Amino acid sequence: MTHTNDTMLELFESVLRQMQTPEEPELLYAPIIYSMSGGGKRLRPVLLLLTVEAFGGDVDEAMCAAQAVEIFHNFTLLHDDIMDNAAMRRGKPSVFAKWGGNVAILSGDAMLITAYKLLAELNPAKLPRVMRIFNDMALEVCEGQQYDMDFEDKDSVSAEEYILMIERKTSALLSGSAMIGATIAGAAEEDVKKIYRFATELGLAFQLQDDMLDSYGDEALGKKIGGDILEGKKTFLMVQAMSRATDEERKVLCTTHTNSALSDAEKIATVKALYDKLDVRHATEQQIELRFERALALLDTLSVGSERTAHLREFARNLMGRKK
Amino acid sequence: MTHTNDTMLELFESVLRQMQTPEEPELLYAPIIYSMSGGGKRLRPVLLLLTVEAFGGDVDEAMCAAQAVEIFHNFTLLHDDIMDNAAMRRGKPSVFAKWGGNVAILSGDAMLITAYKLLAELNPAKLPRVMRIFNDMALEVCEGQQYDMDFEDKDSVSAEEYILMIERKTSALLSGSAMIGATIAGAAEEDVKKIYRFATELGLAFQLQDDMLDSYGDEALGKKIGGDILEGKKTFLMVQAMSRATDEERKVLCTTHTNSALSDAEKIATVKALYDKLDVRHATEQQIELRFERALALLDTLSVGSERTAHLREFARNLMGRKK
Repeated sequence: MTHTNDTMLELFESVLRQMQTPEEPELLYAPIIYSMSGGGKRLRPVLLLLTVEAFGGDVDEAMCAAQAVEIFHNFTLLHDDIMDNAAMRRGKPSVFAKWGGNVAILSGDAMLITAYKLLAELNPAKLPRVMRIFNDMALEVCEGQQYDMDFEDKDSVSAEEYILMIERKTSALLSGSAMIGATIAGAAEEDVKKIYRFATELGLAFQLQDDMLDSYGDEALGKKIGGDILEGKKTFLMVQAMSRATDEERKVLCTTHTNSALSDAEKIATVKALYDKLDVRHATEQQIELRFERALALLDTLSVGSERTAHLREFARNLMGRKK
Repeated sequence: MTHTNDTMLELFESVLRQMQTPEEPELLYAPIIYSMSGGGKRLRPVLLLLTVEAFGGDVDEAMCAAQAVEIFHNFTLLHDDIMDNAAMRRGKPSVFAKWGGNVAILSGDAMLITAYKLLAELNPAKLPRVMRIFNDMALEVCEGQQYDMDFEDKDSVSAEEYILMIERKTSALLSGSAMIGATIAGAAEEDVKKIYRFATELGLAFQLQDDMLDSYGDEALGKKIGGDILEGKKTFLMVQAMSRATDEERKVLCTTHTNSALSDAEKIATVKALYDKLDVRHATEQQIELRFERALALLDTLSVGSERTAHLREFARNLMGRKK
């Protein structure tokens, strides 16, 4: 009996609840507990564990690695929130806002080390390979974060540069998790490569959809529209729009978010009117479909039967908020 | 032929010069190069490598671990400089001052990951044990830093609490390096424990001496006096003085560094006069001698002959600035 997405999440949460940290010094460890118990969708550990099962591996053996990727993910959020000056995270004050920058830096460091501590519990025969995947993944996430910050100060970013950035910032942690799961399960090298590409494409589809929902999401579903536009973020839509715009339109795209003569609603309307005119929604939707279809198609090429990858398919659909 | 401290340092520096990082993104990797090429005494990797040789191990095999502890050390400096708001490091602008906090956070994170990347190059049979030592050491350093920051806001710190703090903040990285060296060389468990205690005691002697030189160093030798006093830092001298002071004297010790009626020279003179009166110099010197002698005595108890530990003895003397 393999796990569905829901039962795998339950299993992982039950393990996470038993996780212990030292009590002292409190300002080092309390933020870790706070951050790890703050919810979140546990996407990366669930993907890792579902991949283990898809390749016939042992979920219990992989549990320490699943915790490691989840702690790593939360470490990146802790440090990103300092860099982005973000006061809120998952509806609660961020560690940065609650305890200040110094605590967030040092607790984040301790989280990163704790991720490696969990990784070190792996079967020693598998540790070196898994550690190499983890290290490369972790560095790629840092590179993605740096490119994302670099883009803020750059006049023009190409669609290719943008895709390379989110491949690091968003996909790397998903693809690394899937590769670690496959490696622990003892999958063939060829399958490990394919599962990496599956999760990479899925991560891109997910991030591009996230970009699109900022402008075209359903406010009736509680989605707040226009946050990226007000921040002047170079999303895929903005990057596409810039590449298609006239000089005059480009100027509007660049300056609207800092135009103090406009209300927030007017800023959003101005930029969205240009997005509509330049048809970037369509271009983005095409990219999302392309990436999502590629991801699913890659699952069909694995050496294991399609019944074994059913839960990975379910994961992909859930991630994209799709019924089928 | 084993290496002296000098030839080991040369060997390590030559390896470090060949270390490569990716070129892009520049703001992620340039600070790492800057930080690693900024000099420093390379105490931890030299201790690690000398320990390898003391136990008859292969220095080449341990070189990746030596680089890992040095990168880890520099990572801690990068993040500490943000937390301490420190503009200078080794006579040059700190990464924090040169590139800003965000770059220092993210480059520091990448350095920590790079340390693990180097560690993963170890002989796979030795990796799990070395990694456990490294992880525990790294967490202890974070704990030490947090306790040190906690002490700033604490009214009273006992000598025992202070020793426990510097055991983590200063000794852990030395004792971890020595244990890693012994482990790579295949030393017996008993010897690994002893070399751990050797480096712990040595680290304490070193930190206590550093505390003392802030008040009683030789200005003729270029040592600037009183920096800790002006910062109001709870050094071993201050902690000792507080425990021996009358209520009135304690008030002077607590408030002098923030007393705007006094010049810097007057502040230093005021606190030092109390140190002299309370005889904390003598108490500190006793602790230093006790720790240093314990460290050297531990070397005599190792299962290897005293000729094999000659260079570790030299290391200990060099660290304390002693001829013999």
